[in-house]
Amino acid sequence: METNAKRHFNVLLFSGDYDKCLAAFILANGAKEMGMTATIFCAFWGLLVVRDMGKISLEDKNVYEKMFSSVTPANAENLPLSKMNLAGLGKSMLVNMMDAKDTPHLQDFLQGARNKGVRFCACKLSMEIMGFREEELLEGIEVIDVHAYLQDAANADMQLFI
Amino acid sequence: METNAKRHFNVLLFSGDYDKCLAAFILANGAKEMGMTATIFCAFWGLLVVRDMGKISLEDKNVYEKMFSSVTPANAENLPLSKMNLAGLGKSMLVNMMDAKDTPHLQDFLQGARNKGVRFCACKLSMEIMGFREEELLEGIEVIDVHAYLQDAANADMQLFI
Amino acid sequence: METNAKRHFNVLLFSGDYDKCLAAFILANGAKEMGMTATIFCAFWGLLVVRDMGKISLEDKNVYEKMFSSVTPANAENLPLSKMNLAGLGKSMLVNMMDAKDTPHLQDFLQGARNKGVRFCACKLSMEIMGFREEELLEGIEVIDVHAYLQDAANADMQLFI
Repeated sequence: METNAKRHFNVLLFSGDYDKCLAAFILANGAKEMGMTATIFCAFWGLLVVRDMGKISLEDKNVYEKMFSSVTPANAENLPLSKMNLAGLGKSMLVNMMDAKDTPHLQDFLQGARNKGVRFCACKLSMEIMGFREEELLEGIEVIDVHAYLQDAANADMQLFI
Repeated sequence: METNAKRHFNVLLFSGDYDKCLAAFILANGAKEMGMTATIFCAFWGLLVVRDMGKISLEDKNVYEKMFSSVTPANAENLPLSKMNLAGLGKSMLVNMMDAKDTPHLQDFLQGARNKGVRFCACKLSMEIMGFREEELLEGIEVIDVHAYLQDAANADMQLFI
Repeated sequence: METNAKRHFNVLLFSGDYDKCLAAFILANGAKEMGMTATIFCAFWGLLVVRDMGKISLEDKNVYEKMFSSVTPANAENLPLSKMNLAGLGKSMLVNMMDAKDTPHLQDFLQGARNKGVRFCACKLSMEIMGFREEELLEGIEVIDVHAYLQDAANADMQLFI
């Protein structure tokens, strides 16, 4: 059995759902607490969680990119639940339940993961399709391509698609 | 190539969808049949599948926990499909198709996995947020934290997030 | 570190969503470009992407199988988005954004993966439940059972459930 110091944890964060992003960040925080290294590769909807709303600009965007920027959630806390309508349970109910237990919010787990040194990457192809610019991302997010993701993931001790 | 006897299969079951839980249980059953060890770590919506409805109590729950207990599906067979509305295909149609082929139901695959010795765990943090008590779970479900899950998963030969 | 020539990439494609299938195919194409071997095991909704619409026949199907064949998307390009209603963003908008960047469509990535030698498999149990016949699949798709999938996946350097 290897020691955790040599272990690497890799997540492809495809989802832009509040609950799934929460799971990804809690796992990455846990991995770092245990001494592992960790990478989160944000692709497709997962990109929504690493945009810096203060930096988003509509300049130099085509009509689809402008529409897309306008209709997507303004920050991590505004992401929807993956099960919006499961038996009427809404996101406000989940957040209320988290508050009742003093559980940190998504934004806190994201910040915690960044403070702990989780490597955050953004998918180059997804950014091109969605019209996101590197300067619209949170500071310190690396833009990498699919090959670089695969290299990181194939060398990891565990890989998850969330 | 290792022999399967030394292999370990790990699933993080995040989903509470009938079809995704079915996939998780079929895979865990298959792994055990091949001689592997297997762990299913139930988190978030995945907790819905390991509650024992006969034991659920509303005592000592706050208002959100009571609402949540009331609105969530009463047992595994009542879980919804991940694609409720895909082209009008409903869950009753899927179950009818399974019956036409004498395919066991979700409850049967769950019981089969338990009989075969699949290790079922419940996520401590998810239980706290959702207000589930250990005594409300099916017998033999271990409550473990994220670190214990990561240790099990990082030592596994395959890890899936379902 | 192993060379990529000895590396193996494995995906269990459970989803029949356009965006998730796109992710699976882009990853498999990338893995092959890097010299890895790659397997995509299509189960449940993932089977919808490997049917050959020219070969689908309603003969010898029971009533559920006929209904199912009639209501499911006619080919890969007709698959729905996983987030149909996320802030009003529809699939036509995503496809328009892809076209604006000259990004190939799902069908092109599927064909690319097949040309590059990605191994495509279909889940035997899922086919039985859904009433799909082997002769209705695209040419060269192997029908294998859960044990054969697990053997391939446990020997892989990375496994994803998409």
